[in-house]
Amino acid sequence: MEEKLQKLKDLLAQYQDLRHTASLLEWDQQCYMPHGGSESRSYQSATILRLAHETITSDEVGKLLEELTPRVDEMNPDSNTARLIKVANRRYHKLTRVPAKLVAEIAETVARAHNVWVDARAESNFAKFEPYLKRIVELRREYAGQFQPYDHVYDPLLDDYEPGMKTAEVQKIFAALRPQQVELIKAISAKPQVDSSFLYQKFDPQKQWDFGKKVITDFGYDWEHGRLDTAAHPFTINFGRDDVRLTTRVDPNFFNSAFFANLHECGHGLYEQGSAPELERTVLAGGASLAIHESQSRMWENLVGRSLPFWRHYYPRLQQEFPAQLGNVSLEAFYRGINRVEPSPIRVEADEATYNLHIMLRLEIEIGLMDGTLDVHDLPEIWNNRMEEYLGIRPADDRHGVLQDVHWSGGMIGYFATYALGNIVSVQFWEKINQDIPDLPAQIEAGQFGELLGWVRENIHRHGKKFEPQELVARVTGSKIDAAPYMRYLRQKFGEIYGL
Amino acid sequence: MEEKLQKLKDLLAQYQDLRHTASLLEWDQQCYMPHGGSESRSYQSATILRLAHETITSDEVGKLLEELTPRVDEMNPDSNTARLIKVANRRYHKLTRVPAKLVAEIAETVARAHNVWVDARAESNFAKFEPYLKRIVELRREYAGQFQPYDHVYDPLLDDYEPGMKTAEVQKIFAALRPQQVELIKAISAKPQVDSSFLYQKFDPQKQWDFGKKVITDFGYDWEHGRLDTAAHPFTINFGRDDVRLTTRVDPNFFNSAFFANLHECGHGLYEQGSAPELERTVLAGGASLAIHESQSRMWENLVGRSLPFWRHYYPRLQQEFPAQLGNVSLEAFYRGINRVEPSPIRVEADEATYNLHIMLRLEIEIGLMDGTLDVHDLPEIWNNRMEEYLGIRPADDRHGVLQDVHWSGGMIGYFATYALGNIVSVQFWEKINQDIPDLPAQIEAGQFGELLGWVRENIHRHGKKFEPQELVARVTGSKIDAAPYMRYLRQKFGEIYGL
Repeated sequence: MEEKLQKLKDLLAQYQDLRHTASLLEWDQQCYMPHGGSESRSYQSATILRLAHETITSDEVGKLLEELTPRVDEMNPDSNTARLIKVANRRYHKLTRVPAKLVAEIAETVARAHNVWVDARAESNFAKFEPYLKRIVELRREYAGQFQPYDHVYDPLLDDYEPGMKTAEVQKIFAALRPQQVELIKAISAKPQVDSSFLYQKFDPQKQWDFGKKVITDFGYDWEHGRLDTAAHPFTINFGRDDVRLTTRVDPNFFNSAFFANLHECGHGLYEQGSAPELERTVLAGGASLAIHESQSRMWENLVGRSLPFWRHYYPRLQQEFPAQLGNVSLEAFYRGINRVEPSPIRVEADEATYNLHIMLRLEIEIGLMDGTLDVHDLPEIWNNRMEEYLGIRPADDRHGVLQDVHWSGGMIGYFATYALGNIVSVQFWEKINQDIPDLPAQIEAGQFGELLGWVRENIHRHGKKFEPQELVARVTGSKIDAAPYMRYLRQKFGEIYGL
Repeated sequence: MEEKLQKLKDLLAQYQDLRHTASLLEWDQQCYMPHGGSESRSYQSATILRLAHETITSDEVGKLLEELTPRVDEMNPDSNTARLIKVANRRYHKLTRVPAKLVAEIAETVARAHNVWVDARAESNFAKFEPYLKRIVELRREYAGQFQPYDHVYDPLLDDYEPGMKTAEVQKIFAALRPQQVELIKAISAKPQVDSSFLYQKFDPQKQWDFGKKVITDFGYDWEHGRLDTAAHPFTINFGRDDVRLTTRVDPNFFNSAFFANLHECGHGLYEQGSAPELERTVLAGGASLAIHESQSRMWENLVGRSLPFWRHYYPRLQQEFPAQLGNVSLEAFYRGINRVEPSPIRVEADEATYNLHIMLRLEIEIGLMDGTLDVHDLPEIWNNRMEEYLGIRPADDRHGVLQDVHWSGGMIGYFATYALGNIVSVQFWEKINQDIPDLPAQIEAGQFGELLGWVRENIHRHGKKFEPQELVARVTGSKIDAAPYMRYLRQKFGEIYGL
């Protein structure tokens, strides 16, 4: 038994090493690879990912899991070993149930589709992308079909990104949230708009860079085990808990872009740096799911970084760095400016109050495509109509509408919901944190984040993937994922800012 | 047959992908990895290198080679396929003949020995390193023993770095060269020393960086498929011919350090960038051997970069960048300064005229250790005595003597000779190049390197590893490796500079 467990751990360690190595290939490609290196790189990535896949889906892993699984009943169900076997089983079965031929066809299709999407978006020409998206929808439906029986055809897709989560659960959460959020935005739109023009000035890139680094250093980001680089699209990636790297991009003419990306990515990075050392090189290491990950990035970005206590501490320091730009802007005006709510067509530029509606629209479309109630051909119109219904605006063209996101071209149907769930979960955690640390606002106002970081480390980070998202949220907050706290938060914050 | 060949090629491609990926892990570790990331990295590197080793030594590769090798007789012996099977056979047999237990023991021993050597060198304490070096010598002798019968116990070690090369060949080459080089240095030492003090001034690091980049751009280094970074010890590494990276370090108080390192590493880089596309992802891709590689780096660094025609072109440009430092130094004085000959204890700081003697001393010691005529315990004294004999100086301590190089602590007995062979071969090629391009000095003086690069591409680079070093040198120059041209070159160049 011990020997078999060790053999399984060795194979899983090899799997993790290969995945982390693939991540370094990816990081390097985004950050430093010379432009002409892409052909070799694509071979290397394909080989490493194939070997990772072959490792986790090997007969040897299957046999070991078969032998070890019955022994889990004798273990403490929360022990690392019991959870390790559970998560490894999950991954093994999810990956082995899909025929290699289908995996290959999806890979080939999305490789072609991505390039077509790039062109189609540039030309704002949905018809060009349409046949590829149709094929992707068919293939993803075929993929889901491998996991029958299910409650909903969308379940296996959602589960790829949010382990154990059901479509019905997400629909219920979103259904409760949507009308309230639409109503809030209408109320805000009826009020005088706040000024944010001062954010659109020349801000010296090096000073922006240094200020952002200073803040995430205060948050507790560990530079001994991380670094910050420039990338076209900010992301966080890690090759173990001891090497967690952030990326950002600096807009010399807009303050928010780099600063809040720094805070956001730092939230992801702190999560990975906080995974328990004893989970390293196992399938339990690192963030529990995309939604839980997003709850951490959104907490530091929004709940901390877009709060008044935070800026009570940092705003005088920021004014010192940029006296010409901000010397005459009051703290309160700055706070309102960075929290300005304004329905806009592009998801990645959306504010806290409108963001989730972008997601709900996508989720409804994805579910409709999968269960056959929507046709790809009709997407542009459906998209634009729903944007009008939810946000009161209509995209000028498909480039600013249905073609804006990369996800579908990459076959990632099932992904979007995690963004909104992350926002929702972040506030559930936040309410609990504020109960446990009553003077948290005062600590933040003093620029002290140690107790906050300690709390998320203890309650969330260290567990890695031991608990599925719903279980983790329930353990931490006593409740499953629930949008009520999030809605309370939005109402209070934007009620104050807009005088509702 | 075709199917089997394709299967072999697929496995060799996987092997190359894994090795190139391991190289990226290494590059990142030297250039960008946060200090605290070394534990995960060591696991990843070990896993990737193990998988590479398992791939090339697999029974499947062995069986395919067994089936394909008899067919080579029917092929053009210079065809890529015939050479591929030959080189793959060579690598397969070299790697499979050493028991896994011995490989593991060497790996463990050198991992420990390296750290001990770092301390021993810092303390100039040979006794601390001695037992580890003893063990390494024993293990390397055991390693060599796997390849009996051989002409000399040192042959299998040399062959690790210089395929096909024999100890007797190197001894003969060096025996002819040594007395002449010792004599030349004595003659130089009797002459008035040239001034090089102007090289030791403040040179703005950014300007140094830019000037070096400009020159290697002129050489033809392809930035679309490469980059230049800073590392503690300059090196060149590649992940395919389409991604070849250089590193350098800048000394703000000494001009030579970064500049000639740039040229040297660029020479390595140009070689890898010039490997034929059809050899990619096979064991024939990239430089033929360490000596041939060094012949390329030394050519650009010394034969081009330390020549008078080169500086006739670049010196006015350099003076423009550094008028305060070099405005009053004549071209001739600068040329003499960068070519100053001065026996010194440290190999990596040695000039063109003394460098090979550092190598010969090491080779003699390595051969003595392997054939049992020298004892590790006596090395410091042997080292210092021979330094006095060859270079007329005695190291102040073992830190500047027997402990200076990293190689032995890493088990790399057999490596050193390639440095001197590289110098020797570089001039053999150079004589041939100058026959084929009679106006080469004029081209260099005009800052034009296209024809030179074209020549080495055509005659050396594109062949990759198709030909073993002796065969390649003979194909290019009509002669095997021979030190006479090198000696002629030294005599003429330093005869002029020192008025001998």
